[in-house]
Order: sequence, then C-alpha cells, then structure tokens
Amino acid sequence: MKKLFSIVLIIAFASSFSQSDEEVLKTIYHQTLTNGKSYEWLDYLSNQIGGRLSGSLNAELAVEYTKKELESLGLDKVWLQPVMVPKWVRGAKEFAYIETGPGQTTNVNICALGGSVATNPTGLKAGIVEVKSFKELEDLGKENIQGKIVFFNRPMQAVLINTFEAYGGCVNQRYAGAKIAADYGAVGVIVRSMNLRLDDFPHTGAMSYGDLPVDKRIPSAAISTNDAELLSGMLALNKDIKFFFRQNCKQLPDVQSYNVIGQITGSEYPNEIIVVGGHLDSWDLGDGAHDDGAGVVQSMDVLRLLKESGITPKRTIRVVLFMNEENGLRGGNKYAEVAKAKGENHIFALESDSGGFTPRGFSFDCSDANLNQVKQWEPLFKPYLIHYFEKGYGGADINPLKVDGIVLAGLRPDSQRYFDHHHASNDTFEHVNKRELELGAGTMTSLVYLFDKYGVNPIPNIKNIKN
Amino acid sequence: MKKLFSIVLIIAFASSFSQSDEEVLKTIYHQTLTNGKSYEWLDYLSNQIGGRLSGSLNAELAVEYTKKELESLGLDKVWLQPVMVPKWVRGAKEFAYIETGPGQTTNVNICALGGSVATNPTGLKAGIVEVKSFKELEDLGKENIQGKIVFFNRPMQAVLINTFEAYGGCVNQRYAGAKIAADYGAVGVIVRSMNLRLDDFPHTGAMSYGDLPVDKRIPSAAISTNDAELLSGMLALNKDIKFFFRQNCKQLPDVQSYNVIGQITGSEYPNEIIVVGGHLDSWDLGDGAHDDGAGVVQSMDVLRLLKESGITPKRTIRVVLFMNEENGLRGGNKYAEVAKAKGENHIFALESDSGGFTPRGFSFDCSDANLNQVKQWEPLFKPYLIHYFEKGYGGADINPLKVDGIVLAGLRPDSQRYFDHHHASNDTFEHVNKRELELGAGTMTSLVYLFDKYGVNPIPNIKNIKN
Repeated sequence: MKKLFSIVLIIAFASSFSQSDEEVLKTIYHQTLTNGKSYEWLDYLSNQIGGRLSGSLNAELAVEYTKKELESLGLDKVWLQPVMVPKWVRGAKEFAYIETGPGQTTNVNICALGGSVATNPTGLKAGIVEVKSFKELEDLGKENIQGKIVFFNRPMQAVLINTFEAYGGCVNQRYAGAKIAADYGAVGVIVRSMNLRLDDFPHTGAMSYGDLPVDKRIPSAAISTNDAELLSGMLALNKDIKFFFRQNCKQLPDVQSYNVIGQITGSEYPNEIIVVGGHLDSWDLGDGAHDDGAGVVQSMDVLRLLKESGITPKRTIRVVLFMNEENGLRGGNKYAEVAKAKGENHIFALESDSGGFTPRGFSFDCSDANLNQVKQWEPLFKPYLIHYFEKGYGGADINPLKVDGIVLAGLRPDSQRYFDHHHASNDTFEHVNKRELELGAGTMTSLVYLFDKYGVNPIPNIKNIKN
Repeated sequence: MKKLFSIVLIIAFASSFSQSDEEVLKTIYHQTLTNGKSYEWLDYLSNQIGGRLSGSLNAELAVEYTKKELESLGLDKVWLQPVMVPKWVRGAKEFAYIETGPGQTTNVNICALGGSVATNPTGLKAGIVEVKSFKELEDLGKENIQGKIVFFNRPMQAVLINTFEAYGGCVNQRYAGAKIAADYGAVGVIVRSMNLRLDDFPHTGAMSYGDLPVDKRIPSAAISTNDAELLSGMLALNKDIKFFFRQNCKQLPDVQSYNVIGQITGSEYPNEIIVVGGHLDSWDLGDGAHDDGAGVVQSMDVLRLLKESGITPKRTIRVVLFMNEENGLRGGNKYAEVAKAKGENHIFALESDSGGFTPRGFSFDCSDANLNQVKQWEPLFKPYLIHYFEKGYGGADINPLKVDGIVLAGLRPDSQRYFDHHHASNDTFEHVNKRELELGAGTMTSLVYLFDKYGVNPIPNIKNIKN
C-alpha cells in the first residue's frame, strides 16, 4: 500500500511539472546534440594527447589543455589543485611465450599490471599453475606453488547483465593476486584479462602488493583472453609446460600533478556546491577515450551546456577533473580533503566513469528519501529513453566526499561493450559514438539542472558538513 | 483515475507472477549469453557469405546455409517458400567528382541507389542545383532544373532521439527524388546519404521511378555526408560548378528465390501461429551484419533457445527468413499471401530489423487492450534492462500479415549507431557486439515464450482470419 501511495504521489507530481522543466530538458538535449563540445574535446584528448597515465608528460598536457578549454568558457573561476601522484612507467613492450618443449614456443599477448615490478632484464621462466580463486591457491599450498608462476584464470561471468558486476567478481585476481601468490612462494603472476570477449588484447589495471616487503614482490602481468584460453588448454594437456615473460616496468618517486577545477558560482546559494566530474588520467595502452576521456569531456560540457541553455544556476556548479583515479585515487582524496578543510558544503556529486556509451540512467548512493526525490523526476527523462534510477555506487573519485545527506550519483551508460576496451590498447576514440557521448552529457546536465533548481530534499536530520 | 486503476492492476498482477515465468526468462537469458548460436551464425553469414542482395549468388548461398542450419536444430518442419525477386546489379565501382574549372576536379564518394539506371558509359557531367525539399524543387521550377543534376541535401535531424524518426524524415529524398526531379527535366540525382554522422561512406538503399516511363529515368546516387558538406560548400562559393558521375548498374529480369521457414508445431494449439523473423537479403556494399544478418540469426536462435530452455510451445512457433525486404518486399508479401490462401491463423508476429545493438524493448502494432496485456509483462523484463513497450511499427516483412486482432511487434535495439552503418560498406560483422546480439535474441525469445504461454488476450471481437 505504501508503494501504491508513492506511485499516486509520483503521478500527482508528474502532472504538476511546470512546463518549464520539460522545456529546459528539451533545450539541454537539443544543445548537446546540435551544439555539443564533448566530442571535439575528446578528439583532442585522445588523438592529440593520447594515454594520460598519472605522472606522465601526457597527463600534464591534459591538465594544461582542459584548464585552457575551461577558461575559454567564461566560468566564474578555473584553477588547478595541486596533488602528488605516483609515477609508474611501463618501459619496453612486454614479451611472453608458452614453452611446451625445448625450442617449442608459442608467443602470447601480455602487458604488465600497473604497479608491478619488472622481471629480471633477461626475463622469468618457470612452471605455471592455473587457479580460479584464492581458495584454490590455499588448497594447493606452498609445496605446489613455490618457484612457479601462478595463472589466475577465473573468467568474468557472462550471465550478469551489468558487466560491472562481472568485473567486480573477478578483479581481486588482478588487484591482489601477486600479493597472495607471493605468500605461497610464487615467482610471478599471470592474470586473465578482465574482458568478457575472447580477443587478443591484454588489459592492464591497478594491482597492489599491500604490505609485502619490496624484496618479496613478484612481477605480475595480464594475458589476453584468447591466450588465457590457449594457456589453459595447453596446461590441460601437459602440466609441465613452462611460461616465460619479460617486463621492465618501474615505480618512480611521486611527482606533482593537479586536479583541474572550474566553477559557476551560485546566484542564490553559492555555498551549496554541486560537483560533476570524471578522471583526467588514464592507462597508457590506448588513448583512454572511454576511460575516462568521455567522463572528462561530458563533465566539462555540463557547465557549458547549462550556460548555452540559458540557465543561471542558483547553487555553485563545479566541474572537477580528477587526477590519478587509476592507480592511487590521489586526486579524489585530495579534493575531498581540501573541501573538508575549507568546510565546504557539497550537496550533490555526479561522476561519469563508465564509458561514453548510450546513457541508461544513474545509480544513486543516498538515502531512500533522497532517492524518492529523484524518482519523481523520472517522467522528465522518459523522452530521452533514460529509465534507470536505482540505488548503487556513485564513483571512486566522488566517494571520498561521502557524508550524511550528500547525494552521490554515477552516470550509467549501456555497459555491454565497456570491457571490450577497458584498460586495453583498443580504448580509442573511434570506439566512441558522438551521439552516445552527447546524450550522456545532456543527461548529466539535466540532472544537475534539477538538483540545482530544487536542491537536495529532504535535507537530512544529521549533517556532518560544516556550513 | 482510469490510469491509476490500471497501475493498481499491474501491481496486483506483478505480485501474482508464477515464480516460473521469472525462472524461465532467467533460463532463456542465461542460455543466450552462455550457449547462444546467433553470433557464430552471423560470423558465417557475414564473413563466409557476405552481402546478400536479392537475386545474387550470395543470397542463394544464404538460403542454403540457413536452411541447413535450421534442419540441424531438430525442428518439426523446415522448408523453402518460392518467391520471384528483382535482380539489380551494381556493376563496376561508381566514380564521381566536382569540377570547379577546367581540369580542376575533386573526387567524391558516391554509390548508385538500388534500382537506379546507369549513366552513359562515359559518365554524366552537368551543372548541379542543391535543394532540401521537394517544395524547393517546385519553387525553382523547370527553368532552373532542366538539364541539371539535382542534389538533395536535407540532413537527418540530430535532435531526434529515435534515429529511425530522423531517417523517416529524410528518406523520401532517396526513394522518390529521381522520379520527382525527372519531372522537372533534371538529368541526374545525387542524394545526401542517410547518415547522422559526418564520414566518407556513401549509403545505398531503394529508390523508385514510380510510373515514370523507362526512357525518362535518370540515374541517382548517394553521396557521403562529408562530401555532401563539401559539395554544398563549393556550391555556396560558385553556383556554376559541375558534377560528374558514372555508374553502370542494371535491372535484370526477376529470378527465383526463397523465404526460408522452420517451425516447432504447437503441442496444444497447433493452428495458432507465432512468427518470428528477419530478412535474409541485404545490400551489397557491406556484409549486412546489422541489416539484417542480426535479425536473421536472432530469429533462428529464438526457436533454438526455446528448445535449449526446455520449453515445449503450446502454439506453433515459426521462424521466417524473408527474402527481398530491401528492394521489393516480395518475400514478406508472398508469405502473407500464402498464409491467407491457406487460412492460417497468425496471432503474433515479431520482427527484428533494426540492428544487433543492445535491446531496449519492443514497439507494438496492436489494440490498446493487447498492449495492456504486454505491459503486464514489463516487470519480468526489468532485470534485463528492457524498458521500452510502446505503440509503434512492427516491421516491413510482417506488416502484410496485419489483420484485426493480430499483434505485430518490432524489436527495438538502441538506435544511436544504426545509421552509421546502414546500407553502407561499413555494415560489417566487427561492428556487432556478441553480447548485444545475444541479449536481443534472449529478449525476443522471452516475449515469444510469454505469447505462446498466455496467447493473445483479449481475443478481439472482429476476426478477419479464417480458422
């Protein structure tokens, strides 16, 4: 009955929409589809700059470029927020093969995982043992693992409709596999790429040794899904095959970098801050068009589209291009730390970091009451086929802003193709469709417009935020 | 209040779903994502056969291949339904340029429209006049058009979210442009490709001369969107530029071809027929992976997925692979003609002919009462992010089956990328994503399962169908 009551409320609310909200959303979507800038910006970021790994020259070029572009928009303020970031370099292209006998080798496609140590300069050759889980590793025990390379081969589950769930079910192999295998005496780690498709691209991504002493760290690399299948098949025929790989990646000292920030200061409630953002860094193999070039340019375009649509925000709208989401989250943490130190009141933060595909809606990390507020806006989005408004994660970079009462949201584009490209050399501009990217920017702008106009309601009882 | 009442009904209905419908849909989606055949079939159709223009050898190879594959599924019956089809051939690759002065030429990308006549063997060169509509042609009048090439340059409207609407708003230029321009004394027609994107691919498609006598027919071709922009820009600078094009396409006499049909005979109501289909022919420039290889293999997989999911249909489920949708609709018309002659009772027909992208839902051509039946099933589809259940067109091939009481439906995949590929040389297999294709097949199978289980309710008052 409660459900029915809220449906009645929604219907009552729906019919009471001021014509203007419908019209404003129409204007915003028309602007993004006919006068959007996100695709042009993404072209530059992808094709003139390219992969933007934290601490790299490209990352600094991206800081300069986006700052300059934001400055050209006539915002009230644009600035750089300094943050120290890790600098890991891949070095020469990795090389690997499976050896089935003397002189009998088959080359396979690998790439070092971000944060991994190198092998010896001449490479590492050892027996290889396949597992699907940490539990299997435990069952095998030190006696079966010592001196070997561990091959983590648990595939992403095809039956999960949301591919991010499938990713979540596998990524611990990549992130923690080396640390755990090292505890059993392994000398190296090979991880099946986080990819639902069978192809030849190895997918990199962050890994961590946790508290493992430097001298205990073992090299870890991702192998393409096709080659993971090949390796698994060869192991089924002969447990004694050897695996060779060579990589000379390296962790260097931290370097100075920046979050890039621009804002339109609110006309009525300048102290209520709305953040929209994506991350400016990317992995180094592709040009980072989907991850997260798309989120960067969409977030920049939110402020531009508000202006182009003739909207004067009541609240402060801030675009934040976070540095170092991929291998450290230093930018996200720094932004929240500074906001807290300044006693800033963030009421809503929206992140786009799930690719530039057709938007389906948002996931919200907020109270039930605040979700109900959003659900009342659903009918406004129906003409644009935006239908997904559910509880869920906001995003890694905005998560440090979490306090009672804030609404965190993540744009949810169609996820089916995302892991075909994620962290691989085929995360490139030509795989982003202009209209899909622009619809994402329009969808984000529309939600920001509504939160700006109506604020976050109900205002929670407990506020940890200093005002 | 009426709306509220039906919402209450829906809620009541939703909570009364037998667990089994939810479980059956889960089984179907799991089957398609882990054990689907559609992608493998599409690989063969696209990469081993290729473009399948009606009357071509490839079209006949596709008939043989799909018949053989359907026979391997253990259906109750597989057969070929003869149909005479037009045979138009493109001939040598087309050639075109813009001439701004003696010896000053710029090559542009064109392709003959399907059904067009050839130019002279040495090509056609003439002045060119740009229009955006038939009305503009009328305003210009014969005196300004006589002896010239007409350039139809009305672009698809970017602001329409459903790209098929944008297509519908422009396609009369392609279909009827030559017939109408010929009436004003034009000597040729160049049409801006039906493509929302700016790129170098010319997009073919059907055109018709209507009742124009053979000796009055003028050649017509499509030009890529980039080159349409170029040509328009050059015309703005100089109205007196010339356009040259050469094509040697030809209409040959009709040839014998076939619809390919397979069925599972209903266990309880064998005389109630459910059709699911796509079209086996395609244009010749690409390999027809999206248009409509995707619909063909998804439709084939519906019958296979029903079997693999352990479902014994009560009603007769028939897959129909229609021949000649692109340039004649002979297969669709023939199927309906034979069905009528036999007095067959078709209760539901589902077509997939909008590409192999992520499915969003269905459009339904049926009564309000029958749409309400479908709306009650919406909650079953929510876990699969299928949210679009609206009135609309079923599809060209099933449309001839339309009688009172039948439900016609079209699968509605995400439409943003469709016209990047439609009828162009980049409609190729690598642009189809396996999971997106499989989700479409699972979504179609689920709807067929529900209509098979529950029948079409309410049964309409008027029935034109002989039983």
